[in-house]
Amino acid sequence: MPVNLPAPNPSELYPIAGVQIGVTEAGVRKANRKDLTVVLIDEGASVAGVFTKNRFCAAPVQICREHLSAGHGIRAMLINTGNANAGTGEEGLFRARSTCSALAGKLKLPPESILPFSTGVIMEPLPNDRIEAGLDAALANAAEGNWVRAAEGIMTTDTVAKAFGAQVMIDGVLVSITGISKGAGMIRPNMATMLGFMATDASVSPSIMQQLARELADGSFNRVTVDGDTSTNDSFVVIATNKAKHPFIDSLDSANGRVLKAALLSVARKLAQAIVRDGEGATKFITIQVEGGKTADECRQVAYAVAHSPLVKTAFYASDPNLGRILAAVGYAGIDDLDQSRIDLLLDDVHVAKNGGRDPAYREEDGQRVMKQAEILVRIGLGRGQATDTVWTCDLSHDYVTINADYRS
Amino acid sequence: MPVNLPAPNPSELYPIAGVQIGVTEAGVRKANRKDLTVVLIDEGASVAGVFTKNRFCAAPVQICREHLSAGHGIRAMLINTGNANAGTGEEGLFRARSTCSALAGKLKLPPESILPFSTGVIMEPLPNDRIEAGLDAALANAAEGNWVRAAEGIMTTDTVAKAFGAQVMIDGVLVSITGISKGAGMIRPNMATMLGFMATDASVSPSIMQQLARELADGSFNRVTVDGDTSTNDSFVVIATNKAKHPFIDSLDSANGRVLKAALLSVARKLAQAIVRDGEGATKFITIQVEGGKTADECRQVAYAVAHSPLVKTAFYASDPNLGRILAAVGYAGIDDLDQSRIDLLLDDVHVAKNGGRDPAYREEDGQRVMKQAEILVRIGLGRGQATDTVWTCDLSHDYVTINADYRS
Repeated sequence: MPVNLPAPNPSELYPIAGVQIGVTEAGVRKANRKDLTVVLIDEGASVAGVFTKNRFCAAPVQICREHLSAGHGIRAMLINTGNANAGTGEEGLFRARSTCSALAGKLKLPPESILPFSTGVIMEPLPNDRIEAGLDAALANAAEGNWVRAAEGIMTTDTVAKAFGAQVMIDGVLVSITGISKGAGMIRPNMATMLGFMATDASVSPSIMQQLARELADGSFNRVTVDGDTSTNDSFVVIATNKAKHPFIDSLDSANGRVLKAALLSVARKLAQAIVRDGEGATKFITIQVEGGKTADECRQVAYAVAHSPLVKTAFYASDPNLGRILAAVGYAGIDDLDQSRIDLLLDDVHVAKNGGRDPAYREEDGQRVMKQAEILVRIGLGRGQATDTVWTCDLSHDYVTINADYRS
Repeated sequence: MPVNLPAPNPSELYPIAGVQIGVTEAGVRKANRKDLTVVLIDEGASVAGVFTKNRFCAAPVQICREHLSAGHGIRAMLINTGNANAGTGEEGLFRARSTCSALAGKLKLPPESILPFSTGVIMEPLPNDRIEAGLDAALANAAEGNWVRAAEGIMTTDTVAKAFGAQVMIDGVLVSITGISKGAGMIRPNMATMLGFMATDASVSPSIMQQLARELADGSFNRVTVDGDTSTNDSFVVIATNKAKHPFIDSLDSANGRVLKAALLSVARKLAQAIVRDGEGATKFITIQVEGGKTADECRQVAYAVAHSPLVKTAFYASDPNLGRILAAVGYAGIDDLDQSRIDLLLDDVHVAKNGGRDPAYREEDGQRVMKQAEILVRIGLGRGQATDTVWTCDLSHDYVTINADYRS
C-alpha cells in the first residue's frame, strides 16, 4: 500500500503544446500490458537529461548521452518496460540502436534525434523485434492528452501510476507543466528503476537546459532513497517545447527563470516523493531534515546515512522510537570532527535528544505517538553551522524482503 | 540459526598465563544472566585496542582511549552486558569512571589501569551501582580456565558463544592464543555491539602493540558486515602477557613477528566471521572477494557496496542468482573510471558474467545451485590491476526484520 499516494488526477495533467504521447501493448515481456510509450516532441524544443551515476549503466543510458550531445535536436523518446537492457554488453547497444533507427525511419528523422529508455529485467536480451513491431500502434495512438496513459505505460512494479502537473504565469502568459515518474525500489523482478519525464510549454533557452535538469534532479530525485541501490537505468528528462509566448528564459536567476524553476521543482519533488511513497513494502513516508551543518553536502551525507540504515528503517516500520539507532547513524556518517555533545534530535515537534544525550523532558510515549504516524519528520541538529538539507525515504518492512526475495517469475 | 558455527570447543581455548577471568550475574538489566566479566592481567603485559570510528561513541570507549594513552599499564578489563552506556552524555562518563574506580580500589591500582566495556541498550543510564555490587563475586570467580564463561558472559542477542584459540611455536617455545567476541547486528533491543578480546602469552614489545591491534582488526573485524551499521561501542583489544620465554618480538616484519601475527590473525578472523555467521537472521555466509583492482582499498570499497546492498542480500536469502543486482552494486560503488566492459563475476566456480555481460556459457541452473549453498564465494574481477580484497557478510532475511522491528521489551 503506497503511503498517501492517490492515483493521478487527470484534471491536473495539462496537455503540453508540442508533446504527443502514444502508448501500446507490445508484449515486451508479458502480454496485455501497456509496455511501449512513444513521446513525440515538436521541432524547436529544448531537451536535457540527467542519468544514473552507476558505472554499470544500461545501453539506453549510454545512447541517451550520445544522442543528447550529438546536437541534432531531440524529437522523440522511446520507452519500454519489461526489459532494462542493462548488463547486456555490445549486443545491448546494438539492439537499442536498432529501435532508435526503426522509430527514426518512420518519423523521417536521424536516429540521433531519438532518446531510448528501458526498464525491467536486467541481463536479458532486449526483444527489439517486438518493440519495433509495436511502433505503428504506439504512433497511431499519439495525442496531447495521453499523460495518464504514459504514466501507466512506464510502470513496472509500481502499485500506482505517478503523474503531477502545475500551471504558472510567466510575464502574463499561462505556462503548463506535466511530469510522470516510475520506480519503487530497484525492483522485482530486478527491475532497473527510476524514470522521470517532465514537459512544459515554457520557452527556455537550450543553453540553460542542462543546468535546469541538474538543479531539478538535485532538488528532487537526488533527495530520495528507498534502499540505497542506485539503478543502472535511472534517467530524468526535461522538455521545454518553447510554445508559450512569453520572452525566452535564458537565466535561471532571472525573475521569470526563478518562477519557472520553482514550479518545475514543485512537480519534480512530487514525482520523486511518489517513488518513495510507493517504495517496496513502504508503510511510512519519512522526511529527514538535517540542520546546523557546515555545508549542505555534509547535511545530506548525514541524512543519507540515517535514511539508509537498516536498523533505523526497521525501527520506523515497528513504530519503535529507537533513537539510539538514529544517533548511531549520525555518528558513522563520516563527519570526522563531529562533536556528539552538540547533537539534537527531534521527531516532529518532540525533542528527543539534546546535546548528544536523551532530553530530560523526553517521554517515550511522545516519541511513540510520532512513530505511529504515516508521515514522520526527523530533525537532526548538528550544531556546527547554518547549512541544512533534506532527504526523503521510507521504512524497511517484511514486505520489502518478501518482494525482493521472491524468485523472479 | 547461525551458519556453520558450533559452540566453543573448550579443548581449543588455551589458558593464557597471566590472564584470569571472573564472570558473575550482576543483574545489570535482567536477573539470572551472566552479565559482568572481569579480566585480570598480570603486571608487565602489553595491551592495545582499536575502537569504533563512530563519532557518537559510547562513554566506555572514550574512557578506554584515555586509559590506554595514560601510560599506567593496563591491569584489568571490566565488561558488562545489558547496558551500552551510549548516548548518555556527561552522566555516562561519570558512571563508567565510577565502575573503574570501584574495581581499581579493590585491586589497589590506579583507575587508569582499568579498561571498561559496555554492551546493551543505548540511551539508558548505566546501573553502575549493580555493577559495583557484583565486583566481589566476579573477582572471587577469577581463574585462568574461564574462557568459555567469558564468551558467555559478553553475549547479548548472540545465539552462540564465540571463542577460538590456537597454538604456535616461536623459537621453539609453545605460545598460546585465545580470543572471544560478541555481536550479531547492531542489535535488539538496540544493543551496541561488537566486542572482541584476544590474549596471548607471547612476548611482544609494547611499541608494536598498537600496530598489531590495528593490523589484526583490519584483517578481521574490519572485513565483516551484517547490516552496515557501525555501532557506538565496537571495541577490539589484544593482550600479550609476555610470559612465554621466547625472545621479545619487536617487529611484525621479523620472522617471529610474522609467525605470531599469522596465528593471531587466524583466530581474529574466526572471531570476526563468527559474528557474521551468527548475524541477525542470517541463513548464509557469504565471502565477497574482489580481484583485479588498482588498490586494495578500491577492492574493499566494491566488496562493501555489494555486501551492503539490500537487493543483493535479499537475493542471497532467496537463493536467487539475481546477478544484475551484484553488477549494479559494483557500478555504484564509487569508482569513477570503472570500465564496465571488463567486469567479471563468478559464483564459486560458476562464471556468470564476462566482460560486463552475461557469460554465453552461463546456465541459470548452475548459478542457482551455488546460491542454494550455506556458504557462497562471490568473486568479482575489476580488470584494472593486481590488487585484491575480501569482505564477509550474510544475507538479509525476514528474521532480520522481525528481530529489529520487534519493539524493545
